[in-house]
Amino acid sequence: MTYHAGRRDLEELAIELQRFADERDWQQFHTPKNLAMALTAEAGELLEIFQWLTPEQSQSLDERKREELADELGDILIYLVRLSSVSGIDLLEAARKKLEKNKQKYPAPKVKGDPRKSTEY
Amino acid sequence: MTYHAGRRDLEELAIELQRFADERDWQQFHTPKNLAMALTAEAGELLEIFQWLTPEQSQSLDERKREELADELGDILIYLVRLSSVSGIDLLEAARKKLEKNKQKYPAPKVKGDPRKSTEY
Amino acid sequence: MTYHAGRRDLEELAIELQRFADERDWQQFHTPKNLAMALTAEAGELLEIFQWLTPEQSQSLDERKREELADELGDILIYLVRLSSVSGIDLLEAARKKLEKNKQKYPAPKVKGDPRKSTEY
Amino acid sequence: MTYHAGRRDLEELAIELQRFADERDWQQFHTPKNLAMALTAEAGELLEIFQWLTPEQSQSLDERKREELADELGDILIYLVRLSSVSGIDLLEAARKKLEKNKQKYPAPKVKGDPRKSTEY
Repeated sequence: MTYHAGRRDLEELAIELQRFADERDWQQFHTPKNLAMALTAEAGELLEIFQWLTPEQSQSLDERKREELADELGDILIYLVRLSSVSGIDLLEAARKKLEKNKQKYPAPKVKGDPRKSTEY
Repeated sequence: MTYHAGRRDLEELAIELQRFADERDWQQFHTPKNLAMALTAEAGELLEIFQWLTPEQSQSLDERKREELADELGDILIYLVRLSSVSGIDLLEAARKKLEKNKQKYPAPKVKGDPRKSTEY
Repeated sequence: MTYHAGRRDLEELAIELQRFADERDWQQFHTPKNLAMALTAEAGELLEIFQWLTPEQSQSLDERKREELADELGDILIYLVRLSSVSGIDLLEAARKKLEKNKQKYPAPKVKGDPRKSTEY
Repeated sequence: MTYHAGRRDLEELAIELQRFADERDWQQFHTPKNLAMALTAEAGELLEIFQWLTPEQSQSLDERKREELADELGDILIYLVRLSSVSGIDLLEAARKKLEKNKQKYPAPKVKGDPRKSTEY
């Protein structure tokens, strides 16, 4: 697996994933609906890692839990990139736009130290 | 928002998100446990977009639904990058490793056109 | 396990679950926050059963999948009852109230054959 | 809405929900796959209530949050009962069986005060 200089990270991954699906004839299963389910199922496995831990314990996982976590984060990125790709959406651009919206919605001076949703103000 | 040439996409986003949290004094809420919940809550909103659509309809969203989808994908990437960042995990590396594992686990000739989980073989 | 005549189903289950937690000294982990995570993790396992199936296939599961499904549904009810119980909420009453709200929100003649959310009308 | 004496709670709710779907011609959307998605989307809204709260705060919600919680719990029970119903699964029986399994899997003396998954022992 060589990554071409100049190509951006997520685009490279999207291409790899397309190839992975093509080689297995799995494009037929990769509808946005199905990929949204697969992504959320992986998010559920993420919750399982943390569900009985205190917030503090979640900040200092032992090595085995850390590897489980890395695996789940990897899985989620894989489905997220794949879902964006089959839907023709620029994932990074979407995150940047959303971050800009959040900056407007939650002006720093107003929400300092307060995590409530904007609708609650 | 300027992005420094040479820095990779996801690292840039991680830095932006760190700054966003710092300015709002929100690091205290961003434990891995809480971020895993926030990520999955966003995944739930993703499901909501698709839940009553046929797989075919999920492939041809109207403009409004497409924008909703882009928003949700952006939200998920934001929390995914933030969770990786506070956990000290290289997200892209994790996805690449997972993809390599999947290539071993699902050899193309064996799983062609068959989406069952590896444990079912 | 004997069920006392006259006591309603979900209340009985709630009492059994309380005893199960007490005997294991697990009440300490059963905060509403943690139980909400556990419930959603189980919902993720539910998605996993269906993610690559067509809607039609999801209606005619083989025996093994059906047992998996029953297990997951059981897990979700367990956490749902437990979460309601530790939060002091009458689960069945909550569902009945919600159903009444839905009847108002989606008048039959208006939404016939159309599954869109009420906010989209 | 009258409930017939002698009929159990969840069966009554299942019948009400069947009627609700019939009157709106929504059975066509209520495949197990779609209902699993709808259930998990509601679970995501549950997470949203708790995501930035400490475990302790999750135990003493203010009145508004408590009503939100009751609404979400009601929604989840509705989809859980409906999914069981269209899949021909006895939900309460499934939960009881699962509880019996859990009693075997987690013998009280062995797991006292320890929430780890059985597979970690």
